[in-house]
Amino acid sequence: MSETPIKRPGGRSARVRAAVLDATLAELTGRGYDGLTVEAVAVRSGVHKATLYRRWGGVDGLVADVLSRSAGQPWQVPDTGSLRDDLRAITHEVYAGFTDPGHGVTPRNVILAALRSPQGRQALTAFFEARHGQAAAVVTRSVARGETPDGTDGADVVRTACAPLYYRLFVTGEPLDEPAAHRAAEAALAAARAGVFVPRRPGREDGSGDAR
Amino acid sequence: MSETPIKRPGGRSARVRAAVLDATLAELTGRGYDGLTVEAVAVRSGVHKATLYRRWGGVDGLVADVLSRSAGQPWQVPDTGSLRDDLRAITHEVYAGFTDPGHGVTPRNVILAALRSPQGRQALTAFFEARHGQAAAVVTRSVARGETPDGTDGADVVRTACAPLYYRLFVTGEPLDEPAAHRAAEAALAAARAGVFVPRRPGREDGSGDAR
Repeated sequence: MSETPIKRPGGRSARVRAAVLDATLAELTGRGYDGLTVEAVAVRSGVHKATLYRRWGGVDGLVADVLSRSAGQPWQVPDTGSLRDDLRAITHEVYAGFTDPGHGVTPRNVILAALRSPQGRQALTAFFEARHGQAAAVVTRSVARGETPDGTDGADVVRTACAPLYYRLFVTGEPLDEPAAHRAAEAALAAARAGVFVPRRPGREDGSGDAR
Repeated sequence: MSETPIKRPGGRSARVRAAVLDATLAELTGRGYDGLTVEAVAVRSGVHKATLYRRWGGVDGLVADVLSRSAGQPWQVPDTGSLRDDLRAITHEVYAGFTDPGHGVTPRNVILAALRSPQGRQALTAFFEARHGQAAAVVTRSVARGETPDGTDGADVVRTACAPLYYRLFVTGEPLDEPAAHRAAEAALAAARAGVFVPRRPGREDGSGDAR
């Protein structure tokens, strides 16, 4: 496994990491970044503070490793047989993950915490790159089915489907409801069909090949 | 003018506000939220600390008022004669505003600072709602020209065009370049033409009326 910079020589180290990251996640979910301390993670995980400082450096290292673990965890990419339903499933998962407290594997507070340090932001970029890359499979399959043009950049379709949700949740603070999540999937679908995500496609600039 | 909760009885009060908000902006641009203090704003603006605390409450009130001022400032909405070029002008402005240090009226640090407090986030939501509402004029005009279907939600077209840029800049940390900004405009255009932003349009669910 190469998803993490932390040495995982064997069972005990892996168990320690799991306990520490679970504790970090619980603390972050409960108190947010401003309330996150190495002390509280030590108490909750039963792992000595000195070990936490040595392996993770401090709270920002803990936050970054929570994200590294998420990025490395297998994720069930939807495969419904149509790009529309696959994109809807993806945006629904983002929507549900941030609005249903019991659902999210990468809660809002983890992302907010990661945004607060260079180490966290680096882990966040790697996390999203991993997710976009995995989810791009829905586009690869749709190209094979003839739903979208050859050469469509799958990661960019996924990015476009998810961006309006994160924009509302993390930037503008405008409300996010399920119709808005669906609309974001539909918009990415329409753009993908129109060839917007085919790099340097001749004739795109003047609008030929677009809808209507 | 109703864009600000601050009383503006006359010239002197308005001049004080301008000096204080300019100083806040300069401090934010230079040091970011973590380095922002009421003391530094007082020194830079020449306005007494007690006045700042009385009128703005503290740094979060100052940040919020910087955004309230931006939201109330007139903004030249593009009017090129085509929705494609209008949307490209908008995404180009967002792109240039965050990547060219001399260009931005609402620098990255102002948004990052606003995200750090409930007062700031409220001002940010109002700011983006104002901008989306103003920019929606490009869609109103395109509907009148017959480029996009009747009933298209203009604010949502603009949101969709801008979201991928903010997603990269403020969430994923993936690089933003000019082609990505153009692609975001093209995606919003294709989706608008396909009728994605017409609320509850019959037949949209099953894909009729979409591109290809």
